Amino acid sequence: MPKIFIKNRNKAIEYMPDKDLLQLLLENEVFVDNPCNGKGSCGKCKIRFLEGKLPAISETEEKFLKQEEIHAGVRLSCLVIPQEDITIEILQKERKHEILTKGYLPEFHFHPAIHKEVFQIEKPTLEKQDSFEDALCAALGIQKLDWRLLQQHEITYGKVTGVFHGEDLIGIESGDTTDSLYGIAIDIGTTTVVAALIDIKTGEELAIASMINPQKQFGLDVLTRITYELENPKDAKEKLQHVIVKGINEMIEDLCSQSQIDRSSIYEIVIAANCTMMHFLLGIDATSIGKSPYAPVFVKSKNILARDIGVKAAQGARLYCLPSVSSYIGADIVAGAYVCQLHRAKENILFIDIGTNGEIVLSNHGKLLSCSCAAGPALEGMNIICGMRAAEGAIEDVKISKKGIELKVIGSEEPAGICGSGILAAVKELLRIGLVKKDGAFIKKEKLEESDYRYGMLQVDGKKRTFILKDGAEELFITQGDVRQVQLAKGAILSGFYALLNQANIAMQQLDKVMIAGQFGAHLPAESLVGTGILPEEVKEKIVYVGNSSKTGAYMALMSVEVRKEIEALANKMDYMELGASEGYERLFTRCLLFSS
Amino acid sequence: MPKIFIKNRNKAIEYMPDKDLLQLLLENEVFVDNPCNGKGSCGKCKIRFLEGKLPAISETEEKFLKQEEIHAGVRLSCLVIPQEDITIEILQKERKHEILTKGYLPEFHFHPAIHKEVFQIEKPTLEKQDSFEDALCAALGIQKLDWRLLQQHEITYGKVTGVFHGEDLIGIESGDTTDSLYGIAIDIGTTTVVAALIDIKTGEELAIASMINPQKQFGLDVLTRITYELENPKDAKEKLQHVIVKGINEMIEDLCSQSQIDRSSIYEIVIAANCTMMHFLLGIDATSIGKSPYAPVFVKSKNILARDIGVKAAQGARLYCLPSVSSYIGADIVAGAYVCQLHRAKENILFIDIGTNGEIVLSNHGKLLSCSCAAGPALEGMNIICGMRAAEGAIEDVKISKKGIELKVIGSEEPAGICGSGILAAVKELLRIGLVKKDGAFIKKEKLEESDYRYGMLQVDGKKRTFILKDGAEELFITQGDVRQVQLAKGAILSGFYALLNQANIAMQQLDKVMIAGQFGAHLPAESLVGTGILPEEVKEKIVYVGNSSKTGAYMALMSVEVRKEIEALANKMDYMELGASEGYERLFTRCLLFSS
Repeated sequence: MPKIFIKNRNKAIEYMPDKDLLQLLLENEVFVDNPCNGKGSCGKCKIRFLEGKLPAISETEEKFLKQEEIHAGVRLSCLVIPQEDITIEILQKERKHEILTKGYLPEFHFHPAIHKEVFQIEKPTLEKQDSFEDALCAALGIQKLDWRLLQQHEITYGKVTGVFHGEDLIGIESGDTTDSLYGIAIDIGTTTVVAALIDIKTGEELAIASMINPQKQFGLDVLTRITYELENPKDAKEKLQHVIVKGINEMIEDLCSQSQIDRSSIYEIVIAANCTMMHFLLGIDATSIGKSPYAPVFVKSKNILARDIGVKAAQGARLYCLPSVSSYIGADIVAGAYVCQLHRAKENILFIDIGTNGEIVLSNHGKLLSCSCAAGPALEGMNIICGMRAAEGAIEDVKISKKGIELKVIGSEEPAGICGSGILAAVKELLRIGLVKKDGAFIKKEKLEESDYRYGMLQVDGKKRTFILKDGAEELFITQGDVRQVQLAKGAILSGFYALLNQANIAMQQLDKVMIAGQFGAHLPAESLVGTGILPEEVKEKIVYVGNSSKTGAYMALMSVEVRKEIEALANKMDYMELGASEGYERLFTRCLLFSS
Repeated sequence: MPKIFIKNRNKAIEYMPDKDLLQLLLENEVFVDNPCNGKGSCGKCKIRFLEGKLPAISETEEKFLKQEEIHAGVRLSCLVIPQEDITIEILQKERKHEILTKGYLPEFHFHPAIHKEVFQIEKPTLEKQDSFEDALCAALGIQKLDWRLLQQHEITYGKVTGVFHGEDLIGIESGDTTDSLYGIAIDIGTTTVVAALIDIKTGEELAIASMINPQKQFGLDVLTRITYELENPKDAKEKLQHVIVKGINEMIEDLCSQSQIDRSSIYEIVIAANCTMMHFLLGIDATSIGKSPYAPVFVKSKNILARDIGVKAAQGARLYCLPSVSSYIGADIVAGAYVCQLHRAKENILFIDIGTNGEIVLSNHGKLLSCSCAAGPALEGMNIICGMRAAEGAIEDVKISKKGIELKVIGSEEPAGICGSGILAAVKELLRIGLVKKDGAFIKKEKLEESDYRYGMLQVDGKKRTFILKDGAEELFITQGDVRQVQLAKGAILSGFYALLNQANIAMQQLDKVMIAGQFGAHLPAESLVGTGILPEEVKEKIVYVGNSSKTGAYMALMSVEVRKEIEALANKMDYMELGASEGYERLFTRCLLFSS
C-alpha cells in the first residue's frame, strides 16, 4: 500500500488509493480544518505538497489558492485523491485541544446494548402454516416483538441474524450479518455538533464528523432559540427539530461514506447534549427552560426508536439520550462528570465546562453538587466589538511588553478579529501591565507618562478609552465594553465556583483538582484563566483539561449498558443549586466582579 | 322534547331539535338508505311526511324528487332538521338483516382498557425545579411514561386528567375531562368498512358510518389486491395502507360530526378484519397470503399507537387489532366465533360467514375447527352476467310459478340486475321447477312441451341455453355459466361443511345449530340456502342469522379487556384445516358440486 509521509508531524500513513487526502488525514487523526466538510467549497483544508506525484491542480483549487501558494505546492486536501507515496506538510498548527479531546477516557468494560445472534427460521408448509411472526418468535425463543419490525422487513426464512437491543429484537436480517455492527456517539452543542462512528464490535472510532448546529438560524444561544419558540408557537418546535435531525442525518451519511459502511448497519445512536438541545431534538417544548422557575419538561434518559424523530439508520435503530439533572445542568455535563468519574472521586474535584453557560460540578469525595452560571458569550469571542469565533485569522493569544504587542493568530494569517482565548489573554495582559484596574476600568491616559510604552496603546475619544491591538487599515482594538463582558463572565463563573465551595463547606486549599471540559475550554490556558481571575490563583497548578467529555460520555454509554446505568444513577444523585435562589449570591457575584490582582 | 312518530313502524322517537332527520332515525335504529352518508348528494334517504311542520323544501330536494313525490310529501331526511312533533312514514321496506346486524350480542361486563383519572400536578418552584415528567410521574405514582406524551402535550399543572390504557398513561389533559371518553369499533371487510362510535362510559353506540373499502381501486377481492402488491413491490404496500387509513380517518370525522364530539376524545379503536385487510392496514407485506403454503406474516393481536399508522384520534390513542388464526381465518371470523360464544358451546354448532371466501367454524362442544373455502363472488352478485351488488334496482328474490316469474326488487324500482340473494333464489327455483338438472345443466328445450309454462322461459341460441328473467328492452337473464358460478360456490361451501363434520366425526343429525354471519349472509334466506343445496336440507330449521358479528366482536373487545383475552385464547385454540391439503377433499368437492335434490 502507498504511504503518506507527514514531514512536520513525523508520521506515515498507509492507505488504499481511493479516498481524498482530507479523508485519509482525518481518519488517521491528523486534523485539517474543513468547515465545509470536505465539499470543496470553503478552501480551508490547505496542505503543502513536498514530494511524489499528485493529480494536476483543479480549477476549484486555482480559484481558492493564491499564485504564490500554488508555487509553494499548497493544495486543497479534499480535492486531491493521491495514488502513490507522497510527502506533505500540515500547514495548520497542531493545537493542544485536538489532542485533549481524545485524552480523557477512563477504563471500562465493553458491554454494548446492541448485539447480534444468528438463527434458523423454519419455512412454513401446508401442514404448518405458522405466521412469520410466530416462526420468528419460536426460533428466537421470545414471546413478543415490536410490530413495526414486521412492517419493514422482507420475509426471510432459513439463516437469519437477529439484532437485539438488550432483550428486545430490533432487526432481522437475511443470512449471517454479525460482522456489521455500528453505532454513533453524538454531542449536540448549542454551537457545534460532533458525531463519531463507532465499530460496536471493537469499540474503535472509525470516523468523525462535525458541523455548526444548524439551529443557529434560530438564534446563536439557548435563550434566543427558546424565545424563537415562544414567539412562534405554531411551528417552531417542528422547525427546530427538523433542522437538527436533518443535520444529524447528513453527518451519518458523511460518517458512512468516510468508512464505506451502510447506514442500515447503524443500530444505535447515543446523544449527549444540554437540556434545551435535548428538548429540541425530541420535538419537546423547551419554553419552560427559559422562564422562572426554569423547570424543563424532562430530564430522564430516553430510549426511543431513532426513526420516531426521523433519524435515518437501521430500520429498528435505537436512539439513547443521556439524562440531564436540570434545565441548566444537561446530559453533556452529566456525561462529563461521569467521564471524569466525579462520583467515584476520593478527593475534592471541581469540574467546569466554560461556554456561554458555565456549568460547574463539585465532587466532594463523590458527593456531587452542581450549578450553572450565565457567563455570556464573551469567552467564545462573541459580544466583543472585534470578536470572532476561533477560526483562521482569529487572534488567539496576546502578549504585551515594552517591545510592543505580540499577537498569535490562528492559521498564522493576517489577524481578522479576536476569539475567546484572545480576548481573555488580552484582558489578562491589560491587568498585568496595569492598563485595566481591579474594578475593570481602563486607567486614565493622563496618568501615564508619554514615554511609557503603554502610552501609545491607549486611545482616547472624549471619555471613551480603547486599547489598540493592531494599528493600520484594518484596526483591531479592545473597548471598555469588551473588558466589561469578560468581567461579567469572570464574575459569573468565579461566584459559581465559590458558591459551590461554600455550600459544600470546602476551603480553597482543600480542592485537589480543577477539570476543564469542552473543546472550547481547552483553548483557554491556565495563565489566562488565573490571570484574569476567572479561576483563583491557588488552583493554577491543579488545572487539567479533559476535552469533549460530553462526546466521550456518549461513546462510553454506547459501548456499555453498565455505564448507562451508572450515568443515570449519577444524574439522580447530583444535586443542583439554583444560584439565583441562594442566599447572599448577589453580594458574592458583585465581589467576584472585581479583578482581584 | 318533541317527538317523531313513525306511522308504519309504530314507533315514537323523542329528540333534541338539532340534528337532521336522517341522523335521528339512524341513531334510533330506524334504517334509511343513505349511500352518501347524509351529505345530500345521493337523493336516496327518502321518507314521507304525514303530519306536523317541517322546514320548507330545499333546492337540493327539488332537484332529487319527482313532482309527484313532492306532492305526496316525500322529503330527503338528511336535508330536513325537524323542530317539533312530526309524523312520518318510512318508505324503504324494513329488511330482516338490518335488525339482525344488531341482534346477536351476548351479555358481558364492561371493563374497557381505556379509563381516566383526575390528578393534581404540583407546580415547580425555584426551590423545587422538578421536570414536568417527574412531577407527572410523582402525581400519578408511575415510574415511566411514553416519551411521545411529552412531545405533544402542552405543559399543564394543577388539576389534570390522565388517560390510561390499562396501566399505561396515554394522555394528559388540562382540568377534569372524565366526561369525554369515546372509542370506535371497526369491521374492515374486503368490500365494506363499517365503523361505530361508542361512548366508552356507557357502552352506547352513538353513531355508525360505513363506506366501500377504498382499496377496491386495487382489486375487488383479496387475491387481486395481493397480486397488485406482488406486481408493485415499490409502493403498493404504502398505497394500500394509505387509502384505508384515509378512509378510516374520514369515517372518524363523519362519526364525530354526527355526534358532535371531538376526535381528540377518541382514545381507542378496535379493528376486526380478515387477515389480508389487517396486513394492509398495518402496512405489512401480505403477498405470502396469496401463495402456497399461505403463511401470513402475522396472526397475533396487535396493540399499537393509532398515529403510528396515521389514524387520527387522540394523540396517544391506541389501536387494537383482533387476532387471526391463519391467512384465511381472519380476525373477523375469530370475532364472530367469539360473539356466538362457540368456545363455550355445550352443543355442536356450525358458524358460516358466506362471502367471496366462505369461512366455516365448527364448534364441537367448545372445541373449534375451522376451514376456508373459495366460494367465488357469485353469491355477492359478481361474475354473473346480469349481476350487481345488493343496491336499489337489484332483484333480491325470484319466484317462478305457472303464472310466470315474480321478481322482488330492492327499492321496488325497475329491475336493473340481479344480486347475490336473487341469483341464489333463481337457481333454487330453476332446480325446483326442473329447468336445471342435478348436474347443473339446463334441460334441453325440446324435452319441454310447447304448452309447458316453462317453455317460453328458456331461450336457445345454438347450443347456448338461457333463462329469461325479464323480457323487453332491458332484458335480464341467467346463463348456464351463471348457474355454474353458483354451483361452484355451493360445491366449495358444502364440501367445507362436510369436511369439518367428517374431521370432527360429527353426523349431520348431531348438528344443533347453524349460525350465519355477515351482513351479506343475512340476505340469503334459508329456503335459498337449502333449496340450492349450499346447506343440507337437514339444517334448515337450525339456521340462525347473527348479522355483522365481526363488528360486534370489535365492539365487545373495545368494551372489555377480559373479552380481548378470551378472544386471543379462542384464536389460539381454534384449529385450522387446510382443505386443499386434506385427504379426499377433491372427491368430496366434486360430489358436493351436484345439486342433490
